[in-house]
This record gives sequence, structure tokens and C-alpha cells, in this order.
Amino acid sequence: MAIIVVEVMLKPEILDPQGVAVGAALPRLGFTFAKSVRQGKRFEIRIDGQPTPQQMQEIEKAAATLLANPVIETYVVTVQA
Amino acid sequence: MAIIVVEVMLKPEILDPQGVAVGAALPRLGFTFAKSVRQGKRFEIRIDGQPTPQQMQEIEKAAATLLANPVIETYVVTVQA
Repeated sequence: MAIIVVEVMLKPEILDPQGVAVGAALPRLGFTFAKSVRQGKRFEIRIDGQPTPQQMQEIEKAAATLLANPVIETYVVTVQA
Repeated sequence: MAIIVVEVMLKPEILDPQGVAVGAALPRLGFTFAKSVRQGKRFEIRIDGQPTPQQMQEIEKAAATLLANPVIETYVVTVQA
């Protein structure tokens, strides 16, 4: 059993209203450490056994098709033990 | 300049309709690798310089107050160079 993690973030040049809202809320709550905040998505995909190279290719394709919109988002695929 | 990453996932015992929807959509698109999918959030918080231990405590508090709901979610705070 392995967990494939797909992290999806908006590209830096794309406006991120969720991140802006969080960044504006932090100082209102007394937290002053943040210069800026970006919010993205995180998917944990459970698969049987360790992923084969062919499966990793499929997962890449699924990430680009369903999980992320490559026009405005970047994604990173990693394998957790 | 450092980036603090806060990853927020629903606790395993909490129903995750977004993850279920993604898990149901994958096979419809021909992707059969997934046993189950969970969807969560990912925050990238930019701060000036490297975080001090006191800042890390503040970030932990902000994660538990604003970014995650500890009743139903777990969160992990990590520092990216």
C-alpha cells in the first residue's frame, strides 16, 4: 500500500483570492509573520503495492487531466511509503 | 525568504465527499490505479528570513485557529528553504 501525493498550486502569476483572504485574516487575528499566502489543493491517492513506472505515468496523466488545470495550475506528484 | 507549508487533511474517520467524487471520476476517465482518494488543502506562507522558534509557535497557533479545524482536520507544518 502506497500513497501518491499530488500537490496542486495556482501558478505564481495567477491571482489567488483564497490565499489573499487568508493573508488578510492572519493580521486581524494577531498573526504578523506572513508576507503572502497562497492556497492550493492536496490529494492523497491510495494504491495497492508500490507504484510501477507505468502507473506513475497514468497518475501524471490523471493529475494533468482531472486534479489540476495545467493552464493555470502547477502540480507535483510524490510517492509516500 | 522562507516558505512555510501547512498541509491540512480531514481526519481519516471524517467523510470526505470531495475525495470520494475524485475517486469516482478517475475510473470514468480510464484511470484504474486508485483504491481511494482524500482531498485536503495546502497553504504556502511566505515569511522574511528563516523562521524563529517563536514564529514557528505562532504559525502552529495560526494553523490550529484559521487554517485547520482541529476537530475534524489534521495539519502538518513544514519549512521549505
